[in-house]
Amino acid sequence: SSNYAKVYEAKPSDLERPLDEFPRRHLGPSPKDLEKMLKTVGFEDLNSFVESVVPQNVLKKRALELEAPERGYSEMEMIEHLKELANKNRYEVKNFIGKGYYGTILPPVIMRNVLESPEWYTSYTPYQPEISQGRLESLLNFQTVISDLTGLPVSNASLLDEGTAAAEAMLLSYNFHRAKRPKFVIDSKSHPQTKSVVYTRALPLGIEVSEIDTRNVENSLKVLDDKAVCGCLLQYPATDGSIVAPETLTQFAEVLHQHKSLLSVASDPLALTLLKAPGHLGADIVLGSSQRFGVPLGYGGPHAAFFAVQEHLNRRIPGRIVGVSKDRLGNVALRLALQTREQHIKRDKATSNICTAQALLANVAANYCVYHGPEGLKNIAKRIYGMTSILANQINTSSPHDVVNDTWFDTLTIEINESTTASAVLEKALNEYNINLFAPNEKTVSLSLDETTTLKDLQNLIQLFTCSADLPSEVPQFPATLARTDDILTHEVFHLYHSETAMLRYLHRLQSRDLSLANSMIPLGSCTMKLNSTVEMLPITWPEFANIHPFQPTDQVQGYAQLMSSLENALCSITGFDAVSLQPNSGASGEYCGLRIIRAFLEDTGELHRRVCLIPTSAHGTNPASAAMCGLKVVSFNCLPDGSLDLEDLKKKIDKHAHELAAIMITYPSTYGLYEEGLTRAIEMVHEAGGQVYMDGANMNAQVGLTSPGDLGADVCHLNLHKTFAIPHGGGGPAGAPICLKSHLAPYLPRHPVVDMITYGKDDIKSSKAIDSVSSGPYGNALVLPISYAYIKMMGQQGLPYASAIAMLNANYMRARLQNHYEILFAKNHCAHEFIIDLREFKAQGVEAIDIAKRLQDYGFHAPTLAFPVPHTLMIEPTESENLEELDRFVDAMISIRSEIDSYLQGKPEGQMLKYAPHSLEDLILANDWDTRGYTRQQAAYPLPQLKGSKFWPVVARLDDTYGDMHLMCTCPSVEEIAEN
Amino acid sequence: SSNYAKVYEAKPSDLERPLDEFPRRHLGPSPKDLEKMLKTVGFEDLNSFVESVVPQNVLKKRALELEAPERGYSEMEMIEHLKELANKNRYEVKNFIGKGYYGTILPPVIMRNVLESPEWYTSYTPYQPEISQGRLESLLNFQTVISDLTGLPVSNASLLDEGTAAAEAMLLSYNFHRAKRPKFVIDSKSHPQTKSVVYTRALPLGIEVSEIDTRNVENSLKVLDDKAVCGCLLQYPATDGSIVAPETLTQFAEVLHQHKSLLSVASDPLALTLLKAPGHLGADIVLGSSQRFGVPLGYGGPHAAFFAVQEHLNRRIPGRIVGVSKDRLGNVALRLALQTREQHIKRDKATSNICTAQALLANVAANYCVYHGPEGLKNIAKRIYGMTSILANQINTSSPHDVVNDTWFDTLTIEINESTTASAVLEKALNEYNINLFAPNEKTVSLSLDETTTLKDLQNLIQLFTCSADLPSEVPQFPATLARTDDILTHEVFHLYHSETAMLRYLHRLQSRDLSLANSMIPLGSCTMKLNSTVEMLPITWPEFANIHPFQPTDQVQGYAQLMSSLENALCSITGFDAVSLQPNSGASGEYCGLRIIRAFLEDTGELHRRVCLIPTSAHGTNPASAAMCGLKVVSFNCLPDGSLDLEDLKKKIDKHAHELAAIMITYPSTYGLYEEGLTRAIEMVHEAGGQVYMDGANMNAQVGLTSPGDLGADVCHLNLHKTFAIPHGGGGPAGAPICLKSHLAPYLPRHPVVDMITYGKDDIKSSKAIDSVSSGPYGNALVLPISYAYIKMMGQQGLPYASAIAMLNANYMRARLQNHYEILFAKNHCAHEFIIDLREFKAQGVEAIDIAKRLQDYGFHAPTLAFPVPHTLMIEPTESENLEELDRFVDAMISIRSEIDSYLQGKPEGQMLKYAPHSLEDLILANDWDTRGYTRQQAAYPLPQLKGSKFWPVVARLDDTYGDMHLMCTCPSVEEIAEN
Ligand SMILES: Cc1ncc(COP(=O)(O)O)c(C=O)c1O
Ligand SMILES: Cc1ncc(COP(=O)(O)O)c(C=O)c1O
Ligand SMILES: O=C([O-])O
Repeated sequence: SSNYAKVYEAKPSDLERPLDEFPRRHLGPSPKDLEKMLKTVGFEDLNSFVESVVPQNVLKKRALELEAPERGYSEMEMIEHLKELANKNRYEVKNFIGKGYYGTILPPVIMRNVLESPEWYTSYTPYQPEISQGRLESLLNFQTVISDLTGLPVSNASLLDEGTAAAEAMLLSYNFHRAKRPKFVIDSKSHPQTKSVVYTRALPLGIEVSEIDTRNVENSLKVLDDKAVCGCLLQYPATDGSIVAPETLTQFAEVLHQHKSLLSVASDPLALTLLKAPGHLGADIVLGSSQRFGVPLGYGGPHAAFFAVQEHLNRRIPGRIVGVSKDRLGNVALRLALQTREQHIKRDKATSNICTAQALLANVAANYCVYHGPEGLKNIAKRIYGMTSILANQINTSSPHDVVNDTWFDTLTIEINESTTASAVLEKALNEYNINLFAPNEKTVSLSLDETTTLKDLQNLIQLFTCSADLPSEVPQFPATLARTDDILTHEVFHLYHSETAMLRYLHRLQSRDLSLANSMIPLGSCTMKLNSTVEMLPITWPEFANIHPFQPTDQVQGYAQLMSSLENALCSITGFDAVSLQPNSGASGEYCGLRIIRAFLEDTGELHRRVCLIPTSAHGTNPASAAMCGLKVVSFNCLPDGSLDLEDLKKKIDKHAHELAAIMITYPSTYGLYEEGLTRAIEMVHEAGGQVYMDGANMNAQVGLTSPGDLGADVCHLNLHKTFAIPHGGGGPAGAPICLKSHLAPYLPRHPVVDMITYGKDDIKSSKAIDSVSSGPYGNALVLPISYAYIKMMGQQGLPYASAIAMLNANYMRARLQNHYEILFAKNHCAHEFIIDLREFKAQGVEAIDIAKRLQDYGFHAPTLAFPVPHTLMIEPTESENLEELDRFVDAMISIRSEIDSYLQGKPEGQMLKYAPHSLEDLILANDWDTRGYTRQQAAYPLPQLKGSKFWPVVARLDDTYGDMHLMCTCPSVEEIAEN
Repeated sequence: SSNYAKVYEAKPSDLERPLDEFPRRHLGPSPKDLEKMLKTVGFEDLNSFVESVVPQNVLKKRALELEAPERGYSEMEMIEHLKELANKNRYEVKNFIGKGYYGTILPPVIMRNVLESPEWYTSYTPYQPEISQGRLESLLNFQTVISDLTGLPVSNASLLDEGTAAAEAMLLSYNFHRAKRPKFVIDSKSHPQTKSVVYTRALPLGIEVSEIDTRNVENSLKVLDDKAVCGCLLQYPATDGSIVAPETLTQFAEVLHQHKSLLSVASDPLALTLLKAPGHLGADIVLGSSQRFGVPLGYGGPHAAFFAVQEHLNRRIPGRIVGVSKDRLGNVALRLALQTREQHIKRDKATSNICTAQALLANVAANYCVYHGPEGLKNIAKRIYGMTSILANQINTSSPHDVVNDTWFDTLTIEINESTTASAVLEKALNEYNINLFAPNEKTVSLSLDETTTLKDLQNLIQLFTCSADLPSEVPQFPATLARTDDILTHEVFHLYHSETAMLRYLHRLQSRDLSLANSMIPLGSCTMKLNSTVEMLPITWPEFANIHPFQPTDQVQGYAQLMSSLENALCSITGFDAVSLQPNSGASGEYCGLRIIRAFLEDTGELHRRVCLIPTSAHGTNPASAAMCGLKVVSFNCLPDGSLDLEDLKKKIDKHAHELAAIMITYPSTYGLYEEGLTRAIEMVHEAGGQVYMDGANMNAQVGLTSPGDLGADVCHLNLHKTFAIPHGGGGPAGAPICLKSHLAPYLPRHPVVDMITYGKDDIKSSKAIDSVSSGPYGNALVLPISYAYIKMMGQQGLPYASAIAMLNANYMRARLQNHYEILFAKNHCAHEFIIDLREFKAQGVEAIDIAKRLQDYGFHAPTLAFPVPHTLMIEPTESENLEELDRFVDAMISIRSEIDSYLQGKPEGQMLKYAPHSLEDLILANDWDTRGYTRQQAAYPLPQLKGSKFWPVVARLDDTYGDMHLMCTCPSVEEIAEN
């Protein structure tokens, strides 16, 4: 840590160090700020600060091995290096692989103004609705699209991918019958990765999964006509391209419904613009991927899955739901609905652990629909259908091969004439036409057309199979027997913004209603809202990374392979572990994956009876939820009044469950923002009792380069790349959560049913012991991995530990300034990288934590984390990217609010500000009760003078959550509905 | 025009037509809107509308030849095609060519959030300061940078390029002595392109330009010691890299000042971070290019030139100046200062015609300085100096070659040993090191290092010249004799935003204060604020277009060559002309170029006595200003009360000046928004009298595909690519203004002193009769040409005339709705693509046009063009990109304002709203006179109910222009200055 100074030291005379080094741009405080802050915190230098905050038995400072210059790549070097990697991905090969991933055109106006826009990608999950109305509206549009297309009234605002959505459908069905019906049936013609994830999820809960072939209707109906079946999942259109007859689908539903079992349908939303809606045919749940609504292939993700249900299931739907409610003034206002379903309330009683999902991609998809409108979408679908039909007819009439499926939307499965092989066809396609097809086996080729298919492509495909290139004069129309006849996307939002100008303005309007990192700090404890730098974000929309299909042959994706393998090595070094899987695509998914691996290890070592998972009361709700989903029994243990782990209680619990002990889950530094010395003892105790140690990596931002889970003795951890490693939060996703672990657990890292995993840790560990997939994509949200890669390589060996130290210093500086005004919970002397303000003393007298959170909006700020990990508190995490000015601005706001609290407590009328907060412009300008409020507009709007210069305004007044949950509405309200409201 | 319908007709079954065709995204109204609008305007179909609005003798509908599919390229086809062109530019060759163009690193955060951001690039010149405070602040930062670096108190907010800035310095010096001192002296070691532009500009005014070699001080002083010399321009550092001694510069100044002549210095702002400021050494004017402050090479432009002067010259400075003033409430507020100097007031008495300049690039440069701060800039400069010195020493000590200059900042001129040649060195550099150098002649090589030069580059260069690669241990420091010792960039804005997070927020804050096309329509008559689509904008930041030096050898720039030649062909077809020059980089520069060509033609044909230029009273002020700058005598002629050209007056003036008649300048449709039938007669009359016809292309948006200047009989026109052809206005530039002309004028198209022009019209006309350069760059603002190229190629043969028709229909629809509420000037039945609302009737009763303009801000709109071409009017031009909703929204606002005018006229108190407008939030929330205003906050803020949902707010209250001009302040005010205010 005597190296810290070097980070700022690029001198013009030191020619080895480029002047555009990244750390000085990533880190907020200047060297001068540092001095001032250290003084405030009471230290001479950063080194002594770090050594006194981090316990001696924890601080390791092992040098990181990052396969980058010690100083980190400079920004220009990074761009050049990324371009070199990019050039090793063969993005120019045209993919017809399909199987859940399709070429699509991301409209450039949406690319520039959503996917590439920091205003959209840096915002957090919209927990503060008054300053999130833009993306809430966009997510409501997403839900409306899904509801319309599926024919179901209630949709959520995205899930991680189609595979986990299918698994959620299974869990919903299973829990619907209170875990009493152990059988779940799936369509044998589901996508292979969907099946794999379903099997993964079924196993630990003891759900028996069986498959049916829907072509054999009678037999299928027999399988479903069974009281032990909780539900069934059909794929419509199926993975081979065929479309089960609507009447058959209804028959299946009827049989299931006789037993009150549930029918789930995995579907394709683009197909559904033409195809009869499953919800109208009897499906209870419809799920799928919205990827082909403009979201790049991205080597498998991130893509937003959707999940829609019938009305009676609305309180069981997993994930976030945007609902329509109203604000204090009675205006329509949106917010996340039905939050009490979620794991942060229900913990191990929750039926899903889904937390961060795919908000940004759902927003891209929603806006794609807004831009195209129903006619535009249908035209795209009709074109695809027409081309697919032409190709099918040509193959059937003019080639030696046979199309197997006799219904289709976009996909043909072709039995290859015995004179040749599938591999030969694929080779010819690639060599002669620069085309990728898919071969499920040596006798079969499958292909899917999509929005990007041109006339020339069609001609190439016809030529490939038939050796001629004739086109019929007529383009076939979608068959009436399959076609939906109802209107879709009738809401006006899908009819107003079809010119680029109108779309640009709509996107800009939405964006201007949301507070993001482009406005101010977002000091959400446990969320690490740091800089997501432009250089890190650049590759995301390069076609070389964006246009890659996850099932492209390995030799075509060497850029990704090199990037991922180097990223895995770096993560191994950072965590002190031996192997990594990049597959999990959210923190919760990482937890699930890690625990499943522990389970597989225990099974392998004959200790599957070990089923207890110890979790401290301070843990994030996803920990117990994930444990429960892995079939583990959650046993809580206490924390001491000073916030640290209660080692005695832990000892007691370990002793009690010693023979059943599977694992402990701990977050370090703890969710209380503490570096505890007891950690290593706790780890030893668990190990002594034969348990595995799982570390939740949410707080890794305080560890990197200073210590590590591996160094501390843990066995496995997940990393939230969307926290510590600079993937932006996207308004609620995407995420990235690699699992890192010791070598004894490496053989169990998840496989993929289609892709041979080309990476995995230092020693390229592969194994037949691998668990099934936890995500649809082989490498999870692969497209966002370059962000973390670039972050690590640009910060370098010196910059990364420095960032951890600054993250801590920033937190301690704020803590030091605030401690005279608020009670600081637990962290009596110093905190780690975050700290908790205790507001419980005010509660009895009527001031709630939420009042303070809302009042912060009047100061232009996003509230810190509310009520986690302790109710009636705020948890503040500034991250290393905030500079002294911003820290002071926030602290000044909190101090000012403290005096408003005093006013309230003293019964002064201006204390009412806290209850009315936040003050929307409409309130300030139009309300006619200002004479009686007891405080002025100025106090409400500009409580500090500098706010006059520039301030982010809440768009609505305080939301009415109860009203919204009682009058649940999850699609765009019509004009009449708004009027009624 | 029976083809118009086809533009929307891409059917899924028509496989030849991609579904992502561009016209339906570019055009605002939907086919359904069209029906409604035609009805309102009183026509059955678009065809009959067009035929009745455009006079029969004007409407030609000649098919355009655009080298693109008839339907236009689709968006994806366009991107692919642009990538193909891009791949033909060798951007990966490292340039050390220098000569006014240097490699630089555009910080990615600025690239994404300024250059690629529609919020920045679509805004107009900040004529409405209350909704432009963001870019005004940024331009003030630019001026502050320039003022600090040059050591002069007053800077403007950019000029077109260094060459024209030098010419402006000459003109200022010349006019300073009321055109009585005919001699101007320039440094023989000025950049060749600077010299060329100076010679161009001097010629028609009869200014005698001579050159001095500053190495011969005595002789130079003798030349300058001459009362006939109005001024002198030195280059510091000079084009050969040498730096004239500061004492010498002061001597030159003293000699000049003895005669009250002016010393101008062309300089390099990066060098000035280290070098003594010319303003402190006696320079009266300092000018140069700010390109290397982060602005891409872009094959020669756009780059922002700067121009700074001593206090006593502040009212003579050409171009726009941002000044600090205050608003109605006394808050600091910025606006364009000293507007009365400009040509729209002074017409042919103006001393410059500069209008649109390079605001966007000035903003990039300013933000580059904000991001780096003074230390960062100096570090970059020191690194460059250090590397250059190492290289110089190595060449002198270890190579057979000699560095000629013995002072330098970044540039070395090397005399090549006679054993080889300059070409051989260049060839070796390219083939072995992928490096471009520059060879002024066969014995000399020159090179310039820059911010992008890496250690590896330095080693390559050393190796190239010395065949070894030794580096000294010491890096030389900038010599004290040349070094400045004062502090630069001391204002806090250059010290606060050095982290990317802080910079992002600063840019976002600025952006949020500006109204742009991302917010609402900007109905500025004569400005054509249409969609600047994302696809058009994409190539601008591709390195294949951005990183190209204008002096790169032709075989390295084949992508540009192909693009420009095809663009020239398309423009020929569109204008009905035979040849094109892409060199002029603003409308005014186009006018100048066109008139200079006419002058050259007249000289060539022995008719130089023809010096009269006829210009109607309705003309834009740049027309007479440009004519005067070409040494022409402006003779005005009248328009009739109905707005059309007064052919009788024209006849009279022609008769009077028949033998002196050089040209007529006309705008068509006229600036009154009229298609006049008299045009062709006027053209005939001028031709009969032996004059040439110049057409100002500002209103080309109503001509494209329907008629053309060539078809109408004109001889030459300029096109404002930044109007009709989709280059965004950038808050005041960049622009692009090709000159198109008939073949008899083609031989005079401008040359370039360094670059052999590789394009020029259909027949690739080249000639020794060419005039000297009108711009520094051979192809003007080359980097933005892909925008117009993409626009033309995507709209296609069918889309372009359709756009003209819709532009007219949109205007006529608004006119039809507004005519019952306002007096429409001139256009009694129909207008062309714009129309004028006459507000003169209200003036006597106290309502000014500006009141209405300001009140529109309260409705969330930018005002139409104010007081041009007729005082006390508003001119509205919607363009084809606005849809019916937006047109209606604007019309509704105007109608609502009409009733407010009535209130005022009737003496009702709420009429005062017009005078208080616009209402800033501070006014609405903090003012304490609301009880006495006679209108409510609601009336002020939300005059129409839909504004409650979303509205753009003016940031300050109405500006006080007089105060600002009387207390001129053109740099960032200090805290004390703000307090004093
Ligand atoms: C401590 C902790 N664990 C787990 C999670 C869940 O991560 P994700 O939202 O990516 O699923 C979070 C999310 O904030 C967290 O703070
Ligand atoms: C009719 C007319 N001519 C000339 C110009 C000058 O063009 P520029 O600003 O590009 O110099 C304008 C600018 O608005 C114009 O409207
Ligand atoms: O996203 C979280 O639940 O923190």
